Amino acid sequence: MERQVYLDYGATTPVLPEVLEAILPYFTDAYGNPQSLHSWGDKAREGIEKAREQVATLISGNAEEIIFTSSGSEANNLAIKGLAQGQISKGKHIIVSTIEHFSVLNAARTLEKAGFELTVIPVDKFGLVDPDEIARNVRKDTILVSIMHANGEVGTVEPIAEIGKKMKEAGVLFHTDAVASTGNIPVAVKELAVDALSLAGNQFYGPKGSGALWVRKGLRLIPLMDGGIQEGGRRPGTENVPAIVGLGKAAEIAKRDMPSRTKENTQLRDKLINGVLTRIDHTLLTGHPTQRLPHHASFCIEFIEGEAMLMLLNSQGIAVSSGSACTSRALKASHVLIAMGISHEVAQGSLMLTLGLGNNEEDINYVLEKLPPIVDRLRKMSPLYAKFLKGQKE
Amino acid sequence: MERQVYLDYGATTPVLPEVLEAILPYFTDAYGNPQSLHSWGDKAREGIEKAREQVATLISGNAEEIIFTSSGSEANNLAIKGLAQGQISKGKHIIVSTIEHFSVLNAARTLEKAGFELTVIPVDKFGLVDPDEIARNVRKDTILVSIMHANGEVGTVEPIAEIGKKMKEAGVLFHTDAVASTGNIPVAVKELAVDALSLAGNQFYGPKGSGALWVRKGLRLIPLMDGGIQEGGRRPGTENVPAIVGLGKAAEIAKRDMPSRTKENTQLRDKLINGVLTRIDHTLLTGHPTQRLPHHASFCIEFIEGEAMLMLLNSQGIAVSSGSACTSRALKASHVLIAMGISHEVAQGSLMLTLGLGNNEEDINYVLEKLPPIVDRLRKMSPLYAKFLKGQKE
Repeated sequence: MERQVYLDYGATTPVLPEVLEAILPYFTDAYGNPQSLHSWGDKAREGIEKAREQVATLISGNAEEIIFTSSGSEANNLAIKGLAQGQISKGKHIIVSTIEHFSVLNAARTLEKAGFELTVIPVDKFGLVDPDEIARNVRKDTILVSIMHANGEVGTVEPIAEIGKKMKEAGVLFHTDAVASTGNIPVAVKELAVDALSLAGNQFYGPKGSGALWVRKGLRLIPLMDGGIQEGGRRPGTENVPAIVGLGKAAEIAKRDMPSRTKENTQLRDKLINGVLTRIDHTLLTGHPTQRLPHHASFCIEFIEGEAMLMLLNSQGIAVSSGSACTSRALKASHVLIAMGISHEVAQGSLMLTLGLGNNEEDINYVLEKLPPIVDRLRKMSPLYAKFLKGQKE
Repeated sequence: MERQVYLDYGATTPVLPEVLEAILPYFTDAYGNPQSLHSWGDKAREGIEKAREQVATLISGNAEEIIFTSSGSEANNLAIKGLAQGQISKGKHIIVSTIEHFSVLNAARTLEKAGFELTVIPVDKFGLVDPDEIARNVRKDTILVSIMHANGEVGTVEPIAEIGKKMKEAGVLFHTDAVASTGNIPVAVKELAVDALSLAGNQFYGPKGSGALWVRKGLRLIPLMDGGIQEGGRRPGTENVPAIVGLGKAAEIAKRDMPSRTKENTQLRDKLINGVLTRIDHTLLTGHPTQRLPHHASFCIEFIEGEAMLMLLNSQGIAVSSGSACTSRALKASHVLIAMGISHEVAQGSLMLTLGLGNNEEDINYVLEKLPPIVDRLRKMSPLYAKFLKGQKE
């Protein structure tokens, strides 16, 4: 292969050398159990408490409000199930949007099966949720609203602050899944006016297995799991010290480097988006054209099967996604694209390219060179494309 | 300090150099998301599938029956809640023992609050569960029995194979929490006649944040969390590839080195047990004298507060535990010791010393030299001890 181009940072990121350096001592030196009453335990505990400060600083929250989890999905499950069950005395109505990650959407559906009532709010063609639509659906018994900050499949950034303000007025708890956004764009819990927020380290150069739920102090949250007293009794199990320390370090670096990363990513992203849209016909940008993550380019390329496109791009050394990483092996049409009004047929040609550190202009040029002939090759084999061409001629 | 002696391997172990070496590439090189359809994803997926084989081999199970989790506590929660809810059509009665880890005991109590019925079986003074007692408590609507393989606080190894046989005859699902035993003594799911088994990597030189639940094929298990299709849809969230790879490697090494580790640990343990019992009066060995983990020595030292003893030992460079790692900061009398008929007063003097790689005879000599004067010093300050001495004189 001429080149190795990883354009799947939205699926997961590598760990930065600085982050790895911070993690390493916790495997073989400061290896104590943070709950142990001795120096080995103290060192480990100091590591996680420092990380708690670092993560809190990234999202402008308080350290004591951070609950470390093993992933963004766990943080979302804990938020949805834990907050809903914690507020059950006030009502049983929950609101989410159609484009939530499955760890929110299916958690809400599990609650629905258990007797909660669920309203799923639609989005527009850009994947945007309408804050007024949320407000209109709030009832007296609404106990929780969960709308994601940014969508990982189409990159759209939702008007969370506006929704948050309305929910505050309505006195309803508001959670946001900020897994795709945290570390990539500014996230401040007060400005967003949220009561709970999920994040994951492997979206911004922290380790896999690291996530956190920020929950405003004083809120009742029923744990997903029972066990020890870790994380204030809200999340049991021996703390994954290396992952937590790595999450903290990645948070610190993300805060420091966000302006430069955003500038670089945005330039490359726009070059990529313009390049794809001008070079490949019958292609649409998915998600909002401007209110989108700075590292996120996503398309639907008509008359193409995403999986085949991924394979051929991979054979050229290019790593991209089609649909969300969590469902890519499920090979179903993306529920996000369908919710945005895109047909099942067109949704098949979903292509997501997510940028990160290490990408440069040559990478973009390489993709813009390799992608069009792959699309041509696949379209030549497509019965749908043949049918379309025939229809055009007639 | 003259010496640094870590005798708290039961709380958590360091990661072996070989394990760390296996993990490292997955942070910065093979960093893809295992669900991604490209080479980066393939490498990560191959890493976790190899680990699945290694873990399965350690417990003589099938790889496809392994569900990776973030800890032993998560595996226990998934087993108890997931299996109970999966068998709800058959009944609602669950049996556990009084000395289970809180991730089993409290998970069962959470189910009890949700309408399940719970029988908690007592243990004898050695912490042993009577298989006949379990069998006597099985009812027509009993759907799940969970008894731990070995107790992490007192080291007692339970007669799991015998219980397993009886449960098989009774047609009742049988789970064992083998977190303290797996990697330290032989664990084979068929010989133990269990249907589900929990384990954790940080008990045998694997990384924190690594655990697994083995579940016999075909059993209905309701996931704790909703989300993506990872782990066969039974455990969502981006796989913690480094932790999983490390768990696999640690499993491979544990299988290879178990005979030599057991021999060394047993020798040191017996020297430690004999040394403590002969040097310190009013001291009892907790747990079974012979049916115990090879690396586990535990005592109750009368007229002593465990926490103060830990602090003074720590000031001499010695790391030990009092009660379980998960509750050590909770500073409550151990539910395990209470269940074994030890008084709250005596249980305060709980001392656990758990051996591992890196310990040698000099470590044991050092502890046997430092511990008695610490005990003397603390007893001199103890009103209870003064009262006891006064009673003796009279």
